[in-house]
Amino acid sequence: MRIAKSVQSLVPYTPGEQPKARSVIKLNTNENPYPPSPLIEKVLASFDLDRLRRYPDPVFRELREKIAEIYHTSPSRVFVGNGSDEVLTLAARAFVDDDEAIGSFDPSYSLYKTLAAIRDVPFVPSPLADDFSWAEPVTRGPDGRPVALFLLTNPNAPTSILYPSELVQAFARSFPGVVIVDEAYADFADSSCVPLAADPSDANVIVMRTLSKSYSLAGLRLGFCIGPEDLVEALYKVKDSYNVDALAQACALAALSDQPWMRRNTSKVLKTREETASELRRRGWDVPPSQSNFLFARPAHRPAAELFEALRARNIFVRYFPGPRTGDRLRISVGTDADMASLLAALQELDA
Amino acid sequence: MRIAKSVQSLVPYTPGEQPKARSVIKLNTNENPYPPSPLIEKVLASFDLDRLRRYPDPVFRELREKIAEIYHTSPSRVFVGNGSDEVLTLAARAFVDDDEAIGSFDPSYSLYKTLAAIRDVPFVPSPLADDFSWAEPVTRGPDGRPVALFLLTNPNAPTSILYPSELVQAFARSFPGVVIVDEAYADFADSSCVPLAADPSDANVIVMRTLSKSYSLAGLRLGFCIGPEDLVEALYKVKDSYNVDALAQACALAALSDQPWMRRNTSKVLKTREETASELRRRGWDVPPSQSNFLFARPAHRPAAELFEALRARNIFVRYFPGPRTGDRLRISVGTDADMASLLAALQELDA
Repeated sequence: MRIAKSVQSLVPYTPGEQPKARSVIKLNTNENPYPPSPLIEKVLASFDLDRLRRYPDPVFRELREKIAEIYHTSPSRVFVGNGSDEVLTLAARAFVDDDEAIGSFDPSYSLYKTLAAIRDVPFVPSPLADDFSWAEPVTRGPDGRPVALFLLTNPNAPTSILYPSELVQAFARSFPGVVIVDEAYADFADSSCVPLAADPSDANVIVMRTLSKSYSLAGLRLGFCIGPEDLVEALYKVKDSYNVDALAQACALAALSDQPWMRRNTSKVLKTREETASELRRRGWDVPPSQSNFLFARPAHRPAAELFEALRARNIFVRYFPGPRTGDRLRISVGTDADMASLLAALQELDA
Repeated sequence: MRIAKSVQSLVPYTPGEQPKARSVIKLNTNENPYPPSPLIEKVLASFDLDRLRRYPDPVFRELREKIAEIYHTSPSRVFVGNGSDEVLTLAARAFVDDDEAIGSFDPSYSLYKTLAAIRDVPFVPSPLADDFSWAEPVTRGPDGRPVALFLLTNPNAPTSILYPSELVQAFARSFPGVVIVDEAYADFADSSCVPLAADPSDANVIVMRTLSKSYSLAGLRLGFCIGPEDLVEALYKVKDSYNVDALAQACALAALSDQPWMRRNTSKVLKTREETASELRRRGWDVPPSQSNFLFARPAHRPAAELFEALRARNIFVRYFPGPRTGDRLRISVGTDADMASLLAALQELDA
């Protein structure tokens, strides 16, 4: 057999659909409805092609300095990846031995299970409470294997709920492995765990961010994390030599330098999010308080799976996750006001 | 312990130095001395930022079609990575079980050994003949473990020598594992193994290419490979969801569409390579016939290690690999005619 045993049976992660048609109202992959900083356009228009001819900075010094400045930490506590997906893959390699396991809450980001399969270790789910609030994480698999890496999306996806950072900290202090707090949506939330990752007394917390959501740069593939130096150093050891290309480094630097642009866009998203949530609640939907750029909403009348298909037939794409914990809800990314007006108008007819 | 055992002892790969100063004559990392296609500039200047706002095509359809067209194969036999480094990392995951090993010739690309360490399997070196020509690959480790993946740089680095494709084919047919022919330098060579990877009768050969060298795009991180559909499919299964960003996909498409530009630059490099090799031979250096964009040359008078340092002191960077097989030579990337004239002038004084 030429293909590794664990890969033969592997079921790959299915990303949300990326329709080509521009006419689609795309509320299925939590992209930002507003464009990235205009500084990016300048970077691209004036990019020195000689920087493409040469290898990029393998340790992205400028970018790390900028990240360290924004988050009041040291560049030696910063790592950058080709999307936070890459940071996760490297963490699975760096922090998990073959006889250990990877854990996360359930429901959470469905990639985590695939990540464990690719790493060829068991995935240990920790069921959340019925209302998707915090429940004590499971730290051993059914066979007694220790969970070495706990992946904690906060605010969680697809639930949209934020866990208080005190709970995260208390768990991390009791946990012998590494906790990665995946803060993909934290710029849309009221608080963040970055202080835990920046605090030398918390030795096992890594906080991960992405430019995909709040910076409107899903196409750029730029994720980064902040954490203890020894853990960050282990990530550098296992990464590909030049894992972040020169264009991505330059564009990310520009985007991070334009905090007002990001803040303005996230404010607009928050306003739209609250208005949409209120209207859905008014119509009888169950909509948990979102701290992200999406809603995880249970329809008032029709089953979520049916609504998902009916919306799709009208070129409105939302996300549907089958399964006992998630199958009665839709995950709806917050788009522009016009996008949400179209969605609400369609639902007025469809959810009756 | 929070860091995986195999990672604690891991010695990372050391990439060639990337000096910031523009005044350096940089002949140490086999970059192309000529700029990438001007089509890239157009792509960047007119790039639709909405493509950065959204996730990129996870399976890079357009790019695969272009690659398939150039190499007369099917898009279903093409995989694209964030540099060929990523393709190698994924291959180590997809084609090697925990109780197997990774092999390559010795000397060859020094990353391969690190790759095996990151994958946490033994590395089995196959010593080349004294003149760096082909020797039968070793296909079992000292402990009897089978080599499941053989990484074959062709033309080889740092030796610069091309192995005939008949030898590669005969070996692959006798080998139960997967052979990756890393053709990073093939555009500078007289022949290629692509036909083996495109031929359905050869079920275990993958040929890998990069835009880093012949297309002058080391900063873009774009590698791809061609091979049997089942092996290519396994690579898709283990990759990160969106491993090639939207800008890299667009720039790569432009670069690959400008074959005349690439051909003109490689022709210039070949001419300079032959002139430099002749001059060094005239001075008594041993310079094997190069089929790449670098020379692997043994100085006539002074030890290579000394010359390396002496050149460096004059801001001329070449590469030096210590060790019994490589320590008496310098690996010199072929730069512009002016670069090589400066090098030869410096050596005139230093190697005496």
